[in-house]
Amino acid sequence: MTAYKEKYDNYLADFETVLDGFCGRLDCKPEKLADSLKYSLKSGGKRLRPVLMFAVGELLGVERTSLTNYALALELIHTYSLIHDDLPEMDNDDYRRGRLTNHKVFGVGNAVLAGDGLLNTAYSLLFGECFNGNDRVSAAKFICDCAGINGMIAGQAADLEHENDTTVDENLLNFIYENKTAKLLIAAVVVPSILCGGKYYSELKTFGSVLGNLFQLTDDILDIEGSFEQLGKSTGKDSAEGKYTGVRLYGLDGSKVRADVLAVKCTGILEKFEGDTSFLKDLVSFVRQRIC
Amino acid sequence: MTAYKEKYDNYLADFETVLDGFCGRLDCKPEKLADSLKYSLKSGGKRLRPVLMFAVGELLGVERTSLTNYALALELIHTYSLIHDDLPEMDNDDYRRGRLTNHKVFGVGNAVLAGDGLLNTAYSLLFGECFNGNDRVSAAKFICDCAGINGMIAGQAADLEHENDTTVDENLLNFIYENKTAKLLIAAVVVPSILCGGKYYSELKTFGSVLGNLFQLTDDILDIEGSFEQLGKSTGKDSAEGKYTGVRLYGLDGSKVRADVLAVKCTGILEKFEGDTSFLKDLVSFVRQRIC
Repeated sequence: MTAYKEKYDNYLADFETVLDGFCGRLDCKPEKLADSLKYSLKSGGKRLRPVLMFAVGELLGVERTSLTNYALALELIHTYSLIHDDLPEMDNDDYRRGRLTNHKVFGVGNAVLAGDGLLNTAYSLLFGECFNGNDRVSAAKFICDCAGINGMIAGQAADLEHENDTTVDENLLNFIYENKTAKLLIAAVVVPSILCGGKYYSELKTFGSVLGNLFQLTDDILDIEGSFEQLGKSTGKDSAEGKYTGVRLYGLDGSKVRADVLAVKCTGILEKFEGDTSFLKDLVSFVRQRIC
Repeated sequence: MTAYKEKYDNYLADFETVLDGFCGRLDCKPEKLADSLKYSLKSGGKRLRPVLMFAVGELLGVERTSLTNYALALELIHTYSLIHDDLPEMDNDDYRRGRLTNHKVFGVGNAVLAGDGLLNTAYSLLFGECFNGNDRVSAAKFICDCAGINGMIAGQAADLEHENDTTVDENLLNFIYENKTAKLLIAAVVVPSILCGGKYYSELKTFGSVLGNLFQLTDDILDIEGSFEQLGKSTGKDSAEGKYTGVRLYGLDGSKVRADVLAVKCTGILEKFEGDTSFLKDLVSFVRQRIC
């Protein structure tokens, strides 16, 4: 096992322990509501946002325990966005991470409520952190704004609105990538900075942005080249549905070249940091080369 | 014009000014997202929650300006819940306040995002308040928890789950009333108390709960006796769809008797307060006798 893989698995295992504890305490009625939240939360996934947050926290010397509720909140927000995004009138996906999507198991009405419930619970966790000083409020508000109507939700709305456009505008594509995908990655890497007085704040913001754009571009490439077995979700849907993707703008080969450029740019930002950035550099390579 | 009506209209006008200012500043892309948020926010309504909050604030001597973002957040949360509740796979309503529902104008996918956007924006406003001390964090967290998976969302989920039950269980009906409807009214009246050190905290909590139960019971009565012209929404749907209503459990006459009992109980709680509670007492009577 490579050092990178070992480290990723360690961060992942730490987060899964936090998540298991949270799910164990998660208590609400009706049971179906609780079940639907846990179903989507515990359906695996790479946990990229919590892993990024933990790794940047370690680089900046921020204690893991002071990050756990932020990591949890971010994963809850990410999970709610997937549940709502998979709905029939949105992306209409039946599978996610190799399992039936929330609405296929619990029905559309419940899936809407499950998403609402995860979003609301994320903020309840973060309000709990706000008793401990203004840095912790700033970090909570930063996550909220990244997820909001000038962040992820704006990206989703633009994505939905331009689904059947016949042309692809680069500015609009950048807007969708930046908001739909990059904003939550920016939140993941910027929160540790806010919690230690803003160390490398702007570098981390740029790093999160470029990494998010890279992640979404490789997602678009995988939609063409990947298989259901690798990805756990249907592929080839984006182009079939006329989605606004990088591949439509740059072509498949052009997208790969652009992904390489983004990966180099992303790694370059890390050169400015003191301390051991090898894990984050390897993570960038992984995102570029990922097959799942 | 009665003194009650005059006072209600004053609170209402104050809130509409706050809301207009907020909508004026509300800036996001794509335009359709911004339009869909404003469409539902500015579709009128009684603004019962902000009015209640302002009235209780006045009774307790809490400055109006310190309440405005809480009132706004609560109205945003209430509005998001209506948008999601009106969706085809939820209550499937085409009209709300005499206008087409959000999804009928903007499509289901956009309506899901509009609801998400309002919920998220409510919390962004409240995180902004959290820089100003722990009482303000407590008040924000209180609203969040009232709206959450042990509050309004739990009530909605239970309502949805038991839509076609052939029997009605009183405990379950109480659970639905308390969570789906009363929790946000509790938030409206408890927030001013939290902001002034907990004055009348438990009395206000009970007042909000009983008033919420009364409000939902009169809603169920109006679904039978009211008209589209009075209510601005379709009537007779609850019984046709086998919804879990008070009228199904107590009958129409039994519900009216019970509503009278709740109104008396609600007014009785106000006897314990110092200061002028006449507006709140009149408001209870209005909720009992309302035809819209």
